Amino acid sequence: MTSGGFTLPGEAGHEELTLRLAERWGADVIRDSDGTKLSREILDSGYGIYSTICLIREDREWALANSRLLQQNFLMSAPIIADQSRVQIAPLDGYSTDQFTINDWDGLEFWQVFDRTTGSELPRDRWTFADGVVQIDGAELGHSYTVNFLVMRLWEEISMYNHITNDWGDRPRLMAVEPRHPAVAEHLAEWLENWCVTHPETTVVRFTSLFYNFAWFWGSDPDLPQHYADWGSYDFTANPVSLRAFNEGREVPITSEDFVNAGRYTSTHNPPRAIYREWMAFTMDFVLELGKRLIEIVHRHGKQAYVFWDDSWIGVEPYSERFQEFGFDGLIKSVFSGYEARLNAGVDVPVHELRLHPYLFPVNLEGAPTFAPGGDPTSDARGYWTTMRRALLRARIDRIGLGGYLSLAEPFEDFQAYIAAVADEHRAIRDLHLAGAPETAPVRVAVATSWGKLRSWTCSGHLHENPDLSLLQVIESLAGLPFDVEFLSLDEISASGVPEGIDVLINAGPAGSAWSGGAAWANPELVAAVTRFVADGGGLLGIEQPAALDRAEAAGRLNRLQLAPVLGVDIDAGDRHVLVRRRYSIDPVSDPHTAIFAQADPERVFEGIEAPSGVLLSRSGVTVLAERDGLPIATASEFGRGRAVYFANYRHGADAARALANAVFWSAGRAVEGHIAIDPRVDVAHFPASGKVLVANSSLETVATEILRNGNVVAEVTLEPAGLAILDA
Amino acid sequence: MTSGGFTLPGEAGHEELTLRLAERWGADVIRDSDGTKLSREILDSGYGIYSTICLIREDREWALANSRLLQQNFLMSAPIIADQSRVQIAPLDGYSTDQFTINDWDGLEFWQVFDRTTGSELPRDRWTFADGVVQIDGAELGHSYTVNFLVMRLWEEISMYNHITNDWGDRPRLMAVEPRHPAVAEHLAEWLENWCVTHPETTVVRFTSLFYNFAWFWGSDPDLPQHYADWGSYDFTANPVSLRAFNEGREVPITSEDFVNAGRYTSTHNPPRAIYREWMAFTMDFVLELGKRLIEIVHRHGKQAYVFWDDSWIGVEPYSERFQEFGFDGLIKSVFSGYEARLNAGVDVPVHELRLHPYLFPVNLEGAPTFAPGGDPTSDARGYWTTMRRALLRARIDRIGLGGYLSLAEPFEDFQAYIAAVADEHRAIRDLHLAGAPETAPVRVAVATSWGKLRSWTCSGHLHENPDLSLLQVIESLAGLPFDVEFLSLDEISASGVPEGIDVLINAGPAGSAWSGGAAWANPELVAAVTRFVADGGGLLGIEQPAALDRAEAAGRLNRLQLAPVLGVDIDAGDRHVLVRRRYSIDPVSDPHTAIFAQADPERVFEGIEAPSGVLLSRSGVTVLAERDGLPIATASEFGRGRAVYFANYRHGADAARALANAVFWSAGRAVEGHIAIDPRVDVAHFPASGKVLVANSSLETVATEILRNGNVVAEVTLEPAGLAILDA
Repeated sequence: MTSGGFTLPGEAGHEELTLRLAERWGADVIRDSDGTKLSREILDSGYGIYSTICLIREDREWALANSRLLQQNFLMSAPIIADQSRVQIAPLDGYSTDQFTINDWDGLEFWQVFDRTTGSELPRDRWTFADGVVQIDGAELGHSYTVNFLVMRLWEEISMYNHITNDWGDRPRLMAVEPRHPAVAEHLAEWLENWCVTHPETTVVRFTSLFYNFAWFWGSDPDLPQHYADWGSYDFTANPVSLRAFNEGREVPITSEDFVNAGRYTSTHNPPRAIYREWMAFTMDFVLELGKRLIEIVHRHGKQAYVFWDDSWIGVEPYSERFQEFGFDGLIKSVFSGYEARLNAGVDVPVHELRLHPYLFPVNLEGAPTFAPGGDPTSDARGYWTTMRRALLRARIDRIGLGGYLSLAEPFEDFQAYIAAVADEHRAIRDLHLAGAPETAPVRVAVATSWGKLRSWTCSGHLHENPDLSLLQVIESLAGLPFDVEFLSLDEISASGVPEGIDVLINAGPAGSAWSGGAAWANPELVAAVTRFVADGGGLLGIEQPAALDRAEAAGRLNRLQLAPVLGVDIDAGDRHVLVRRRYSIDPVSDPHTAIFAQADPERVFEGIEAPSGVLLSRSGVTVLAERDGLPIATASEFGRGRAVYFANYRHGADAARALANAVFWSAGRAVEGHIAIDPRVDVAHFPASGKVLVANSSLETVATEILRNGNVVAEVTLEPAGLAILDA
Repeated sequence: MTSGGFTLPGEAGHEELTLRLAERWGADVIRDSDGTKLSREILDSGYGIYSTICLIREDREWALANSRLLQQNFLMSAPIIADQSRVQIAPLDGYSTDQFTINDWDGLEFWQVFDRTTGSELPRDRWTFADGVVQIDGAELGHSYTVNFLVMRLWEEISMYNHITNDWGDRPRLMAVEPRHPAVAEHLAEWLENWCVTHPETTVVRFTSLFYNFAWFWGSDPDLPQHYADWGSYDFTANPVSLRAFNEGREVPITSEDFVNAGRYTSTHNPPRAIYREWMAFTMDFVLELGKRLIEIVHRHGKQAYVFWDDSWIGVEPYSERFQEFGFDGLIKSVFSGYEARLNAGVDVPVHELRLHPYLFPVNLEGAPTFAPGGDPTSDARGYWTTMRRALLRARIDRIGLGGYLSLAEPFEDFQAYIAAVADEHRAIRDLHLAGAPETAPVRVAVATSWGKLRSWTCSGHLHENPDLSLLQVIESLAGLPFDVEFLSLDEISASGVPEGIDVLINAGPAGSAWSGGAAWANPELVAAVTRFVADGGGLLGIEQPAALDRAEAAGRLNRLQLAPVLGVDIDAGDRHVLVRRRYSIDPVSDPHTAIFAQADPERVFEGIEAPSGVLLSRSGVTVLAERDGLPIATASEFGRGRAVYFANYRHGADAARALANAVFWSAGRAVEGHIAIDPRVDVAHFPASGKVLVANSSLETVATEILRNGNVVAEVTLEPAGLAILDA
């Protein structure tokens, strides 16, 4: 048993358990959690102490006394369909009045009323607002009307979620203050100064992020308890103070509709508009300025400052150019999946820590029991760890830990033993990284999206929330593959071409999304840049609806997939191909077929994947790799000196990840290189500096397999379910 | 056995067979077919004689001698991707040189060159054409370029198809002359005059349509033997003469791109642009003028003129306001499905005749054997007849018949017997219609599309060619249901609202298609008109992607389905609902559920139908009738005083047709009325004037069922597979 690199959630009243598990799990740090406290006995036990602080909601008394300084946001009212020329709208109808109250005292100049049947704003003199009701006169019969309005939020969302999930009854509801008010900023600084003085034993202030939660709108209808949620949206940063500051001196002001977007809000899944990108930068500047000031307070008191990248992380933006200016000492990420580990590991910060699942709560995010009768937290933990561990083979994570109520784990001896083993595994893997980086394949991969680097290793949200999002499935596979991966924005590629050194470009996602890219593909510079990249020898992987334009965006153009000339595949929404599709036959022993399905069963790779009804081969020379109901769902072809691969969709799995890796190598024009297991359920990493090969069974079955190096067998291993082995290279 | 109303294909050299089957099948008319002739013995046998004439291709010698007077059309060259600044394009590459030759002697001013990466035309001075090659200088690297060019067609398409299908080797290839050339028009008139003189025994000239075939482009690549086919497209009406005549005096001339549409051509499945509608009218005027002149010749010789609505029917337009001006005596339609019978029956012309399948060819349209070893023409005939017969219960068809080589039927005694039975069935049904129309339900249905009345009872093409086209499946069901059905254009509804007397409006089809309506739904007048229609008590059935706009067309709007406020269902392509969908539960004994699934098994109604991934309930008060993987695929709801039903998709079948009928009644706010069989495989029509009830087993299984009238059992019947019974009312 080793020790260190482990953060244990302590719990006052359970001191013996806390210290016993700290010993057993090799913890070097004890933390508190939302809902738990550390007692004097724990604080004085000699461990490092993390204290979780969520500044904006810490001082409930002050917030109550300053009740107009809470955070705000725009909402769009539910549409009302005019059945007479006078329409009356109670804007908050359908929304949670626990969460929201109408701001009718400030910022009414930002309200807008829309005819959503025409999509256009109503002139200001066409409506009035009085006694909580917007009244429209001269409405068109049969048209739908909505109001964009400002609300103040009465209940901080994470508090709301934890409260409701854990049935906390009349425990106080926390409130989030708005730091754009100078009085709030001053109060936060004073409060933190005082807190540091009164908490000398704390070694690390673990900011539960900084100021702004991702967007999360709750409703009043039991059938629609939530209206909107997005893990990367800046909706909660809008309020009269910030809006006025932003618009100061601007020719074109930002409006409520720039946030509301006809009810789509500023979802990360949609390509960001230019003004919203500016708003994000403006918000980041503010968060950075105040955040730095607060971190300096922590440092002045001899403590470290870590930040948690899940709750109120908006404006922190670890992948922005300016993140290092905060001066954070560590970054903590809650993880379900491998890509979330890479998201953390890829940030330039001294310490990378993961908070594992399950969280020590009675039930999980879906409401199923974990540390409660009927739960099996050990299986849960093994599943999460094994899924995520692939990523740790590729990138260093310094620390792991848990959160929640430690006492809930007391009855689960097998869970305690399993976490001890996990902690040892993590330290073993970390030590190999510390001795020297693992070998990567000589193929550099770039994922091209609307967001580029700012949304590296994420598509906003967890995999279980977005199982249909092909790019998220792809990056989950990439998280455990031996490629260098970077994230490029389509705008960068339009402006400067595909950067030197990139071997393979991936574009994946539904048409119109930020992941596929939407209207960016109407820019011929972008299409030509990627076309030239492949013609000159690059590789392209197009997945789902790559480079897709809407019909209405593609006037005069040949294709819906703007890279169809390169891919040799298009997805037509029209009809011309219904009667006349290009014929093909699948030759399972032909070259791209055997290369791409080496050690990957095509049936498993494409399990559950349908053919888009309009898919067609747009030129000759395209090899169909797999089909569904007579339509191609995977193709490979040469284009100029390069190569292109199309997959109709993608679901992460052992076989899929192997096929993806093979497709990356093939499209780069290379054979598979480096260490690999014949069985795709096993991931392999070679650490040259240590002379070790790490072999991880990423499945929950026993696997016996051979390990190859550049195609030659160098070892045979048998691994138990989820087993790990370290071999001599 | 009865007789009359049957057209038999005779065959010279098989006189005994011809006359024997004419007797057996109760024929009153004998016809020739493409590839067969009638001998003197047959002509003199006392039967009426149909002679098939396809004027434009009859006189091959004259066409050969006037080789620049053949028909023409625009093609788009295959895209060439620039890998240097000079691009050379051989326009005809990839097309069949048996079918096409470049017209390099006339009309070069209509050629256009496009950068298809930008979607814009290249200025005329950027390209040259010489020696069969278009050369572009200053091309952008990575951009795709195409040429719109005129070709002359060397081989008439039906001749080409029959020739290739039947392996006719060196039999002459027929050519289609262009009647826009005055010399051609004169020749056609002279030829017909002479033909009438030399064929005194012919009683009916059966024009194999008039002048212009639907579009059908053949290719040279064995993997892409056909590039484009559309049964309703006017592509083959473009040539320098017609283009110049159309553009005479026009401010905005028609261009090659108006036909080419970036390679989508003038497909019936896409909403027609205004200039194309004008072109269609302009072509109809010409076809009518010359057609009338030719029909007058036929009439002058004491013969009748029938027209066949399948091959060169473009410009004939039986559902146009002017069709009666032709003076045709009959309309003949080849049928696979019920809706094609309604298509024919709905036209205002004295005689309606159907040409049944199978055609007397060795193989069918898919190349499978029919009258050849391995074929089972009796089963084929029974399948087609039983499928189609539902429609004959609702609308009168005067005659039926066959086509092809009668001698092929000689070895198939069971086929001969079956056709005799079919002919008797047809005459029995027809006689009921002649005595007085069948009862219809008191619910008037309108199908709303971009085309409206002009494309009544068709979506262009046969059901087996377009099985995924929801509207075609819907109209196939409607063809056998007891509703009055009409077809409205979305433009009419925008301008004048839903007409008085319509009870239920149906909109069905994929987003962007002429069937759903595409950009027409960006017109708020249309949305408001339909919204008011339902609010005031109308019924709406929305199927697949009703009233759908592309994302790019819906700026500022709430929904992708513009009638989402009415339907209570939207299909979002974005993300905002991924985490937050409205909850529902299905109550199988609730009201709309029991009404809509009365005598229809929901499993069979929605067999094979998937949920659109973005489907969601957009408001409360929506009853989910059926779901797939947790997403609604069928809903019903009240809206104002009206009702709306949504189906995610639709496939015709006995249960589906029953559910559709129920949904029509329910959305009209009525109980099911009239005669109906409890088993949905049985169709029932009540003929009050005859005091008879026609009961048809539209399945190939034995069915025992009760017949209801207004919900009360009035009879019990047991019908053999495909069986028919006539009961006293």
